[in-house]
Amino acid sequence: MEFKKIWQERSALVEAQLVKELNEANPLDKTLCESMKYSLMAGGKRLRPILVMAAADAVGAKGTDYLTTGCAMEMIHTYSLIHDDLPAMDDDDYRRGKLTNHKVYGAGMATLAGDALLTLAFEVMLRQQGVSSDTLVRVVREISTAAGPDGMVGGQALDMESEDKQISMETMKNIHLGKTGALFRAAIRSGAILGSASEEALAALTVYADNFGLAFQITDDILDVIGDESVIGKPVGSDEKNHKSTYVTLTSLEEAQKLAQDAVDTAIDALKIFGGEADFLRELVAYLVKRNK
Amino acid sequence: MEFKKIWQERSALVEAQLVKELNEANPLDKTLCESMKYSLMAGGKRLRPILVMAAADAVGAKGTDYLTTGCAMEMIHTYSLIHDDLPAMDDDDYRRGKLTNHKVYGAGMATLAGDALLTLAFEVMLRQQGVSSDTLVRVVREISTAAGPDGMVGGQALDMESEDKQISMETMKNIHLGKTGALFRAAIRSGAILGSASEEALAALTVYADNFGLAFQITDDILDVIGDESVIGKPVGSDEKNHKSTYVTLTSLEEAQKLAQDAVDTAIDALKIFGGEADFLRELVAYLVKRNK
Repeated sequence: MEFKKIWQERSALVEAQLVKELNEANPLDKTLCESMKYSLMAGGKRLRPILVMAAADAVGAKGTDYLTTGCAMEMIHTYSLIHDDLPAMDDDDYRRGKLTNHKVYGAGMATLAGDALLTLAFEVMLRQQGVSSDTLVRVVREISTAAGPDGMVGGQALDMESEDKQISMETMKNIHLGKTGALFRAAIRSGAILGSASEEALAALTVYADNFGLAFQITDDILDVIGDESVIGKPVGSDEKNHKSTYVTLTSLEEAQKLAQDAVDTAIDALKIFGGEADFLRELVAYLVKRNK
Repeated sequence: MEFKKIWQERSALVEAQLVKELNEANPLDKTLCESMKYSLMAGGKRLRPILVMAAADAVGAKGTDYLTTGCAMEMIHTYSLIHDDLPAMDDDDYRRGKLTNHKVYGAGMATLAGDALLTLAFEVMLRQQGVSSDTLVRVVREISTAAGPDGMVGGQALDMESEDKQISMETMKNIHLGKTGALFRAAIRSGAILGSASEEALAALTVYADNFGLAFQITDDILDVIGDESVIGKPVGSDEKNHKSTYVTLTSLEEAQKLAQDAVDTAIDALKIFGGEADFLRELVAYLVKRNK
């Protein structure tokens, strides 16, 4: 599939750029630097940078021009995983088949590595070239709101508060809108804004983004039940073990699969105003609900 | 003293604005909101916002116009204290005479409260009114660099790595330049840049800032030895207990006092190009080495 080749090529660009940004960051402490690099270069789908670039492509701009902003989004995503894995949070030993950051560097250094990646993300995104300062301010505000108490961190807190509790579908949706949805939305909207999207295009991509996030999350919940541990890189059944409410536990496996497919259809439908320049986004969302990790 | 009245009045402005920003942040999770508020409103000297405003005053602008940026700096400072106190870091039970954040909300929520305050700080500073987007981008970059791996977080990591080790004066200076110096510098430079400082004025204020940070840190080290526990709000002698190298342990009490006074003199001397509009900064640095908490 053509779109997988683009994904692969751009992931390689992202990884090369991440290494470059880390080397330029010149941290005062060597172990801090290693710890940041350990998690940042531990693989992953590089979905958020891929989405920044694909959204810019969709509105007729050149996606790779916004690699810098994409890398900043990946740093925010990585910091959130490091903190989420901490003993005081989910207390996970493995992530993507590798030891989690704190299992290698200790919880103190892992906390600082997360803090450093979040802060560096802002420094990096403010270096995005080829856009006016007005646009840059708009994009960085969009991303900070998505990552903050009203978005990603808020979702994490709500998730933590909901463990071992019977929660409603409404609360679970809010958790996911915050934990994963907000950053996907910001990635896609940032790419569109950087690429000078019209208001109509931005609105369409926002609908796509929200349904992309929904499809992604439901699939995650499904994979936790039926996935292959050796492929996912972390134990399956962890949601049940941790008494977490998911789309599967609150509905059923079949219903969750149907909800995921509905979200994919809605996402693809939202792209009808675009031509072939949005094909990557169409294929990506359809692929993600069929993924096995 | 006139300058103490200004300090008091402006601290009240800062506190009112912080409450406003928190209320507008609308976090997804109620406990997260309470936890952020608990530490943000736990008192403190509000030095960083005060410095933003005083630097703007010194270059002939109106300091209170930059309250927003000052509040963002206070959020960054507060997040760093919350994370620094965590069990995986310094494991402190008290801060400013009150239980530390994690003693009240647990280490997981305290980690998230810190994350949320850091992210909200960027959202807030990007809302600073009355400046061009070009200037805003410059200021936010300055602050992100100061708070990141090359600045504050780097200093924290270096500090953690140096515990229970014999370190050189050079390493200790790097720790403090990062941990406290970088943010003081960014506060003062941000205020100056927001207030349209000339290059000469900015350079002079940078010299002031670096010596301000030095004088502040040495005084902190001195107070840890000779301070009054009930006034400081945390146990004295904690540096010795934690085997931390300080200006006092690496030189002597007398030598540290002399170094602090030298830094004050250099800071005040750097302000000679300014008139009465820099009096607040002159009095502040002289006062800080005589403080008892």
